Amino acid sequence: MIAILAAATTALVVSLFGTPLFIRWLVRRQYGQFVRQDGPTAHFVKRGTPTMGGVVIILAALAGLVAATIQRGRMPSATTWLAVYLMTGLGAIGFLDDFTKIRKQRSLGLTPIAKIVGQVFVGVSFAVLAVHFPNANSRYPASFRISFLRDTNLNLAHWGFAIGLILFVIWANFLITAWSNAVNLTDGLDGLATGVSLVVFIVYLLVGMWQSNQSCQFMSAAGPGCYETRDPQDIAIFAAAIVGACFGFLWWNASPAKIFMGDTGALALGGALAAVSILSRTEILAAIMGGMFVVVMVSDVIQIVFFKATGKRVFKMAPLHHHFELSGWGEVTIVIRFWLIAGLFAAIGMGIFYAEWVVS
Amino acid sequence: MIAILAAATTALVVSLFGTPLFIRWLVRRQYGQFVRQDGPTAHFVKRGTPTMGGVVIILAALAGLVAATIQRGRMPSATTWLAVYLMTGLGAIGFLDDFTKIRKQRSLGLTPIAKIVGQVFVGVSFAVLAVHFPNANSRYPASFRISFLRDTNLNLAHWGFAIGLILFVIWANFLITAWSNAVNLTDGLDGLATGVSLVVFIVYLLVGMWQSNQSCQFMSAAGPGCYETRDPQDIAIFAAAIVGACFGFLWWNASPAKIFMGDTGALALGGALAAVSILSRTEILAAIMGGMFVVVMVSDVIQIVFFKATGKRVFKMAPLHHHFELSGWGEVTIVIRFWLIAGLFAAIGMGIFYAEWVVS
Repeated sequence: MIAILAAATTALVVSLFGTPLFIRWLVRRQYGQFVRQDGPTAHFVKRGTPTMGGVVIILAALAGLVAATIQRGRMPSATTWLAVYLMTGLGAIGFLDDFTKIRKQRSLGLTPIAKIVGQVFVGVSFAVLAVHFPNANSRYPASFRISFLRDTNLNLAHWGFAIGLILFVIWANFLITAWSNAVNLTDGLDGLATGVSLVVFIVYLLVGMWQSNQSCQFMSAAGPGCYETRDPQDIAIFAAAIVGACFGFLWWNASPAKIFMGDTGALALGGALAAVSILSRTEILAAIMGGMFVVVMVSDVIQIVFFKATGKRVFKMAPLHHHFELSGWGEVTIVIRFWLIAGLFAAIGMGIFYAEWVVS
Repeated sequence: MIAILAAATTALVVSLFGTPLFIRWLVRRQYGQFVRQDGPTAHFVKRGTPTMGGVVIILAALAGLVAATIQRGRMPSATTWLAVYLMTGLGAIGFLDDFTKIRKQRSLGLTPIAKIVGQVFVGVSFAVLAVHFPNANSRYPASFRISFLRDTNLNLAHWGFAIGLILFVIWANFLITAWSNAVNLTDGLDGLATGVSLVVFIVYLLVGMWQSNQSCQFMSAAGPGCYETRDPQDIAIFAAAIVGACFGFLWWNASPAKIFMGDTGALALGGALAAVSILSRTEILAAIMGGMFVVVMVSDVIQIVFFKATGKRVFKMAPLHHHFELSGWGEVTIVIRFWLIAGLFAAIGMGIFYAEWVVS
């Protein structure tokens, strides 16, 4: 509990006070954002706002984890290392992308191929590592079973370890790609992706605390509803660090944004979310709790598929928030309402999670 | 648990869909807000925005309570009746105030005397009733002890029932006056008071659920940390109803506000908060969890006292949010940052509440 507090507080302080320093540094070096040329015209005024704010989010979260580690006085678990690896690995790719944009003075960064190769490398290595490293109680960080509220009976290793590993790598990379793209697409209005991430990681903090409270390994009398997560407390600490980091960042990222998170932030947060969902065995639940991200991504997919098939557009512009912008909603109105919807999704997800525990 | 869900969902649906209907009705009758003449000049553009939105908040919360009652299949407890009485009683006074403003076409409503008399009547009757009605386990809705995280040893009835009653009536009315004024003062920017209320009642929902989980009366093996609240589940249900109501209202009340809550809403929410803090035995904790309201109120008091004493102003304008407005912060920036601070206060309060339970 104190470790969770240490992680959240440290990350909060670092991002709250670190972000303005980072903004000043970026502005001095004239590193501004180049807003996409095909977005709503109202966004052209945003040209010049510094980006790559994800750097602060990542550093703040890492600072939080260091604080929690010092407080606990022992090395982080494999779960923490894996989550950190996926977050910073994808964040680094996002950073290269952002940095290329700025250097080459254009809105598009890394070549699509380079980005995909980088993501696949990080994603595959994460997945392979995640099904190794059992602890003393023979619990692994990730499992070959597809998980909803906990591991289901859908076992990817049904035909043996080799096929299981291949299927799991595919499944994990699907989740990683989906989440990092979903957060990236949502990151189109001031404070939107940061606020939604804040909500999602708050509920993951609760999930981690609850799993730790009801752990099959650590409970003296484990009930039928106990959880098999290898390091539930580490999930809670990791989520708490990101909550603190997003909280402090949102202070500066809220409308009118003084800084954007950039691909650095979107890929890091997407990676963190994918990692947490896999490691806490709540892969499908994550799609409910983070439903706002999913809705935004699906709106984009629908738009593209429908346009290619029929030549017509379902939305005035995709992703969804731009549709509402062109429909005349104010940017702030959209952001706050999307936060509210994110809160609803999170509440529904938590409700299902808790209800299943009560029943089991 | 299902009753809590029923309360929140029903209140949400009523306020989400009821508010636009109410706005249309108000606009048709040309009931607009008359913005205070001495506020920031930027606020003059808000003239004409309908007010009295608190009517929807109250009705939505009541609808939620009715839904929970039907789900549970038994009459509400004394705790629920008392909370409803304080919320609607103060809300009715606020409504008279708002309505007078509109009818007389001026920014100031009821005479101060009329308002105070009404509030004192509701507050005193609430306090007197709250220390009657023991349940089958001899638990009373309120207690004569001043409460922090639970009842303390500070017993107002130390010199007997009569003096205890008088002191308790004074104490309860201090809390009621403080909370209703604090919410009212905070209600100066689009969505500010609604969002802060949402945060505070979310944590009260958690407090109620936790107290109900760890109740001395209803737990088979009550531990040393058990809670003496008479009807903890009813507190959770009441808070859930207000959470749903505020949530749906915020959809329309967020910047740019289509409707204001008015005194109707501010007094009702302040009354609800005072009631919940007294009935859940967390009177001092409420000042931490609702710290954002307290900060705003204290800023106003400091300004007035300091000005009367020295003729100088501490803030450019009180309450606090107008100070930041005149300092050049955008309205939305202030609102979102105040929400974030409200979230911090709520988290700190919850942390203290939980830590005390762990220790005891």
